[in-house]
Amino acid sequence: MLKKLLIANRGEIAVRIIRAAKDLGIATVAVHSVADAEALHVQLADEAVDIGPPAPKKSYLNAEALLKAAKDTGCDSVHPGYGFLAENASFSDAVAAAGLVFVGPSGDAIRLMGDKVAARSAAAAAGVPVVPGSAGRVDSIEEAREILLETGFPVMIKAAAGGGGRGIRIANTLAEFEQAFPQARAEALAAFGDGGLYMEKVIGKARHIEVQVLGDGNDAIHCYERECSLQRRRQKVWEEAPSKALSERQREDLCASAVSLARAVGYSGAGTVEYLYDDAAERFYFIEMNTRIQVEHPVTEAITGIDLVAEMLRIAGGEPLRIKQRDVAIKGHAIEVRLNAEDPARDFAPFPGQISDLRIPGGPGVRFDSMLYPGYQVPPFYDSLLAKLIVHGETREAAIARLVRALTELQVGGLKTTKPLFLALAADPTVQEGDVHTRWLEGWLSENAAKLAG
Amino acid sequence: MLKKLLIANRGEIAVRIIRAAKDLGIATVAVHSVADAEALHVQLADEAVDIGPPAPKKSYLNAEALLKAAKDTGCDSVHPGYGFLAENASFSDAVAAAGLVFVGPSGDAIRLMGDKVAARSAAAAAGVPVVPGSAGRVDSIEEAREILLETGFPVMIKAAAGGGGRGIRIANTLAEFEQAFPQARAEALAAFGDGGLYMEKVIGKARHIEVQVLGDGNDAIHCYERECSLQRRRQKVWEEAPSKALSERQREDLCASAVSLARAVGYSGAGTVEYLYDDAAERFYFIEMNTRIQVEHPVTEAITGIDLVAEMLRIAGGEPLRIKQRDVAIKGHAIEVRLNAEDPARDFAPFPGQISDLRIPGGPGVRFDSMLYPGYQVPPFYDSLLAKLIVHGETREAAIARLVRALTELQVGGLKTTKPLFLALAADPTVQEGDVHTRWLEGWLSENAAKLAG
Repeated sequence: MLKKLLIANRGEIAVRIIRAAKDLGIATVAVHSVADAEALHVQLADEAVDIGPPAPKKSYLNAEALLKAAKDTGCDSVHPGYGFLAENASFSDAVAAAGLVFVGPSGDAIRLMGDKVAARSAAAAAGVPVVPGSAGRVDSIEEAREILLETGFPVMIKAAAGGGGRGIRIANTLAEFEQAFPQARAEALAAFGDGGLYMEKVIGKARHIEVQVLGDGNDAIHCYERECSLQRRRQKVWEEAPSKALSERQREDLCASAVSLARAVGYSGAGTVEYLYDDAAERFYFIEMNTRIQVEHPVTEAITGIDLVAEMLRIAGGEPLRIKQRDVAIKGHAIEVRLNAEDPARDFAPFPGQISDLRIPGGPGVRFDSMLYPGYQVPPFYDSLLAKLIVHGETREAAIARLVRALTELQVGGLKTTKPLFLALAADPTVQEGDVHTRWLEGWLSENAAKLAG
Repeated sequence: MLKKLLIANRGEIAVRIIRAAKDLGIATVAVHSVADAEALHVQLADEAVDIGPPAPKKSYLNAEALLKAAKDTGCDSVHPGYGFLAENASFSDAVAAAGLVFVGPSGDAIRLMGDKVAARSAAAAAGVPVVPGSAGRVDSIEEAREILLETGFPVMIKAAAGGGGRGIRIANTLAEFEQAFPQARAEALAAFGDGGLYMEKVIGKARHIEVQVLGDGNDAIHCYERECSLQRRRQKVWEEAPSKALSERQREDLCASAVSLARAVGYSGAGTVEYLYDDAAERFYFIEMNTRIQVEHPVTEAITGIDLVAEMLRIAGGEPLRIKQRDVAIKGHAIEVRLNAEDPARDFAPFPGQISDLRIPGGPGVRFDSMLYPGYQVPPFYDSLLAKLIVHGETREAAIARLVRALTELQVGGLKTTKPLFLALAADPTVQEGDVHTRWLEGWLSENAAKLAG
């Protein structure tokens, strides 16, 4: 078992990791930028180290400062959280090279999955369905035209070296494509030092469904799926489990395919295999694998009773996977909403400031993961996530009712937050039916802006 | 289903009931004394009615004012919570007579179980083991001497009409008994208008184990047991589930006996059958049945996933019991501690005041049921319970670790609380072993007072 853990992150995920470590009796060291000296993760950790100025590059992205903090405090391990250096293969390597345990997969596994082309090839080799598109990287417009014959339009272009939803272009016609391709290539070269592109058929009205996996390098299991179709600008805002779109048979197929991929790459730690799910065709397509704990992991914890962060720490400490697949079962339905410091009535403009008042919801089936406390000054330098509200009920309908109840209890004074968005979504018949796809929310927002004042 | 519910209570249980009602789509009406105008239950309910001055007799115990509030606001039902009028048979009758639904058993069931002698007879008739003692009420010292032949010493004397732990006397010798008996008789007459007494063998070093039952008048099930052996002045301070003292066989026997009793009396609603458990003899003895929701119900909710208050509301609304016994299973281990506004370093003197600061613990497996908010003024008129911290883990050991973690996160500024007691207990080897009995804590307190400053 690990003895002392450096948490190389901030905000709610740093708090979450500290909680898991304390539950397991692992000593904790927080790091913080100057802007975060009063942050909750600093208060809750056993020790805290100032690692630099507010700018992420000078603190939370500064591998050297993080490793020095770990060494200076006698840590034997580093948990990267999500974001920042969590999917940076070189950081995983550097942690290992320093003789410390990286709580996550090896640099090689991160590198493989971070390269969209390589990841797609690995998925296809493991028998996981992939979206029609370039089998490898595309380096010329001539190659691209060949691939268009298979994908048709609309088609997506993105940098092979890019992560997440950044730098994606959609071309609806050949003319648009011919214009976009050289631009994307130039941008990829500038941003990543690698002009390789990746092309993929755009699946119309698809759902985003992802499978949580846990691996120990030898074996892997799944903890069922999450549906995260409610997205704004490709950022998830509402996640739930299980997905109402899947039949039992489809669920088993989907989850088995994620386990195949995790096993094929000898995956170690917690990971998520993301898919697009085409309702009409009842088919799923691999998008990518995220080699870290995800923001939305608590919905899986709610329905399975598994503490995913604790399992990550156990695996990193050298324990073999102790959960058997047959012991993982779904109980009830869970929903998470992301409370951001944004003004939904003003196109979600960031709204940092001081928490003047805080009323946290409670009772059965309600979990509130946050770094907020009364008087906390939300700094303007980082992402706008303030809290995650997770509700669990017997059924999806019961979970939505509980979500509304808990949101009504929740009061965050001094800031604008995305709470009105979730109250409006929970009251929407389409959301209540669960009849959504990844671009549904943007359409809804353009029509329902008036409902979001409050 | 019920449509509009009056919550005839205050504090954390009023908040708990409002949450359950909202989860089920039932409108809620809070009542409050003048002292509670700013209370959280008032804030969270859909409507609130001022029912009188701070003194409980003039407000929360004022049946007439409560019924008027229910009528005036168009309620169809009344939930009594615990304490106050929750086990007052006449109030249950009066609610029914007013054409409203009482969320709990009939007046007759409350009356039967409220009479310790009748309850004991009902238990014995249902085949539930009872403590050697008076089969019926004892009205004279001559009768009492006959019963002493069976019970021996120490022996307990209490009013047949009294509830809870109040008015209990223990006699260790015949001389003590001869002195205590007439005093107890005079006190019972003065307090309850009924001098009938009840005698019972004192079981040495017994555990307090109780079984949660749910009935709909036709059928009844159990939701396993809770152990509440850690008591101070006969008030529970730390409750957990399951009990580590029971083998699987004993657990089944104990729970089956509670169901037998609930079925025998046609019980409707949530109830608790309380037992003493003699470790050495591996025998259990019926003490009493509480005909209400109990303070410690969340530990059962944590290990079974059943929302007991929601089930009470469903049953009261006329639904038959929808949970089958075979579907009730224990998952993990849960502990609840009662955070009271008391100074444990000064013999638990009450410590009302204003909440200057509040840091609520969170993360997986942590639930905080409370009426606290920053700035809340705890009134001096009512009981000292501020909050219940409930933790759930895979094992008892994991639950204790999580309890310590959550207690460390918890900060309640402006008051003294019982938090230091629970940190000290969680660190005590005897508590860690679970090797306790109902009088263990008082002995521990006399030896460990120094650990409770903080």
